[in-house]
Amino acid sequence: MNWDQWFTDRVHEREDAGLRRILKPRGAHDEVIDLAGNDYLGLSVHPDVRRAAADAALTWGAGSGASRLVTGTLELHRELEQELADFTGWPAALAMSTGYHANLSVVAALVGKGDLVVSDGHIHASLIDAARLARAEIVVVPHNDAAAVDAALAAGMAGRPDRRALVLAESIYSVLGDAAPLSALAEIAERHGALLVVDEAHGLGVVGDGGRGLTHLSDLAGHPHVVLTVTLSKAMGAQGGVLLGPASFREHLVNTARPFIFDTALAPASTAGALAALRHLRANPALPLTIRTRVDALADQLDVEAPAGAVLSVPMPSPQVAVAAQAACLDEGIRVGCFRPPSVPDGISRLRITTNAGVPETAWARAADVLAKVVEDHR
Amino acid sequence: MNWDQWFTDRVHEREDAGLRRILKPRGAHDEVIDLAGNDYLGLSVHPDVRRAAADAALTWGAGSGASRLVTGTLELHRELEQELADFTGWPAALAMSTGYHANLSVVAALVGKGDLVVSDGHIHASLIDAARLARAEIVVVPHNDAAAVDAALAAGMAGRPDRRALVLAESIYSVLGDAAPLSALAEIAERHGALLVVDEAHGLGVVGDGGRGLTHLSDLAGHPHVVLTVTLSKAMGAQGGVLLGPASFREHLVNTARPFIFDTALAPASTAGALAALRHLRANPALPLTIRTRVDALADQLDVEAPAGAVLSVPMPSPQVAVAAQAACLDEGIRVGCFRPPSVPDGISRLRITTNAGVPETAWARAADVLAKVVEDHR
Ligand SMILES: Cc1ncc(COP(=O)(O)O)c(C=O)c1O
Ligand SMILES: Cc1ncc(COP(=O)(O)O)c(C=O)c1O
Repeated sequence: MNWDQWFTDRVHEREDAGLRRILKPRGAHDEVIDLAGNDYLGLSVHPDVRRAAADAALTWGAGSGASRLVTGTLELHRELEQELADFTGWPAALAMSTGYHANLSVVAALVGKGDLVVSDGHIHASLIDAARLARAEIVVVPHNDAAAVDAALAAGMAGRPDRRALVLAESIYSVLGDAAPLSALAEIAERHGALLVVDEAHGLGVVGDGGRGLTHLSDLAGHPHVVLTVTLSKAMGAQGGVLLGPASFREHLVNTARPFIFDTALAPASTAGALAALRHLRANPALPLTIRTRVDALADQLDVEAPAGAVLSVPMPSPQVAVAAQAACLDEGIRVGCFRPPSVPDGISRLRITTNAGVPETAWARAADVLAKVVEDHR
Repeated sequence: MNWDQWFTDRVHEREDAGLRRILKPRGAHDEVIDLAGNDYLGLSVHPDVRRAAADAALTWGAGSGASRLVTGTLELHRELEQELADFTGWPAALAMSTGYHANLSVVAALVGKGDLVVSDGHIHASLIDAARLARAEIVVVPHNDAAAVDAALAAGMAGRPDRRALVLAESIYSVLGDAAPLSALAEIAERHGALLVVDEAHGLGVVGDGGRGLTHLSDLAGHPHVVLTVTLSKAMGAQGGVLLGPASFREHLVNTARPFIFDTALAPASTAGALAALRHLRANPALPLTIRTRVDALADQLDVEAPAGAVLSVPMPSPQVAVAAQAACLDEGIRVGCFRPPSVPDGISRLRITTNAGVPETAWARAADVLAKVVEDHR
């Protein structure tokens, strides 16, 4: 077997299908307005957040030096965990290196072989991988279909009182832009003795009272049949993931979650950056409202449905047209995202436009006009 | 089902077995000499490395803001990838958020259902998870047993010319401290058309010419049947993981590796910190020799076998005695690690002592004397 040839063949296959993806590095001082990333509040580049990350690197070093269980747990981690738990309304929090690690950790720590995972059809790759790793039975239900979750749990738990079951959902789905029926899901989970795992990656800092997320808004913070995962890499402007739940849940994870135990602790600068972003958000509770105002107005202008979160998704007729529209935006100094198969669950190519509350008002107004014109030209 | 109760019961079970683990946060200005982490060259706290990480946070922000494929790829990532590829002798490199992500990425991108993974019995949790995610057939062979690898490949590939197969090994095993027979494994992989995946987590910066790792020392850099994973969180003093191999391999990963595609890019400070550490190592190629000298002398003093890498492993009679010995070291201002089940593959509790080339000579000499006394008292 010639591996180099095999790799090359795979790449050419993608190229022929119009799906080859290429990394385009960006510079530190690009003049482009970035509406492609997930830095919803613009906090990754806020002066206080940059400064806090830099200070932590100077004070603690560039890395944490070991896994959390050995000698990698810093007082910084505890501070972040406590303040985030307090903010979102949960008793305890546990920080990991990435949101992906958080999701991988939570599923396998809670269920195993013989158990049941009922998963929304559109959940994130990290939760899909997590469910596979757990070796539980996986039942995928149609997107946001609470009745289907109920039925799957009823079928899977009938006559099996000792079976553990999880329900996996995101709060705000980033590709589709809609919100999960969290209250219904929590009620269903409770009724069947299951645990609802909510991924607030795109909800934290964006929706709910002062950005506390959809779970908080739905009055589910601290619910005995709910736990939360969040990332620090989106509205929190840094890197990392956090699991939130009861103190006993945190303890259990510390002792069993492989992607937590066998991984180097989150770097000081990322931890401090996220903490500074959280503090900035607490001091400016109206910040998420800027997202809401902008996203509603832009949805109107582009004639698409307003999403529940910060991301506008504009369907395009084909992958090729989507790429052309994206290029037209960039020509005008605006970077938007483009989702094509296989990273969209339903195969429909889309422009993905992030409402970024950190973009100054005049620049935002110009961007909205450019987007309206480009979308009209490509639809 | 009462989940809180279930978590609490699990924690108590561990407590009763003497296996409950607790996180102990450390402060920024502890007076303790840290011989527990994996910061083998002390570079996480080197002034140049701290400064580079801090400057990157100020210049680029606290986070990269998006996945590598969207808008998260920074010129910093490219610089790090190019310099690391150049240093280790490979055509191309791809950086990820953690070493765990790198390992998860590589296996499932190369093999799938029906394929074969031959894995050393002592490989890291991340590679075990990776093999499970890939859904390939997994054959675990005895530790460092090249003949068993040969036999497993012969059996698994017989009459199946299209089957893809991987061999998974670490270069230096951190718990056992020994080195893999890389030349033999590469020869065997090549003979069977398989690909050898070497995890250099504990080899980079520690062994080989100027710290280029065991693969480089074994003259296998660029070998058509070998690829490499490294972490940036150990001798490189930061956070992150990198995959190294042919350019076609990098391209293939960019297009297929889920823990790469669906994850926010490595934070600027971590990227720049690792880059500064790499540059410091290149400018000071004798640095790894300090590890070698110290580890050999300490092994002599403790009357244990000198390891191939930087980590001395001292078997203890029981988990309880291991914990007591660790506490005795800490009383003397020296933090060492302690491995207990289930994080040791063979169930033997150990003190884990990291040779850290960054500790000043007099402090190191004192630490060695303390260790010798404590180990004698607890053996
Ligand atoms: C819904 C969701 N969950 C989890 C993640 C993973 O988070 P991270 O990038 O911090 O690993 C992402 C995106 O990256 C996401 O969109
Ligand atoms: C052999 C080995 N591979 C991979 C990893 C994972 O690296 P990281 O901590 O950067 O995720 C580790 C330790 O953490 C390791 O010891």
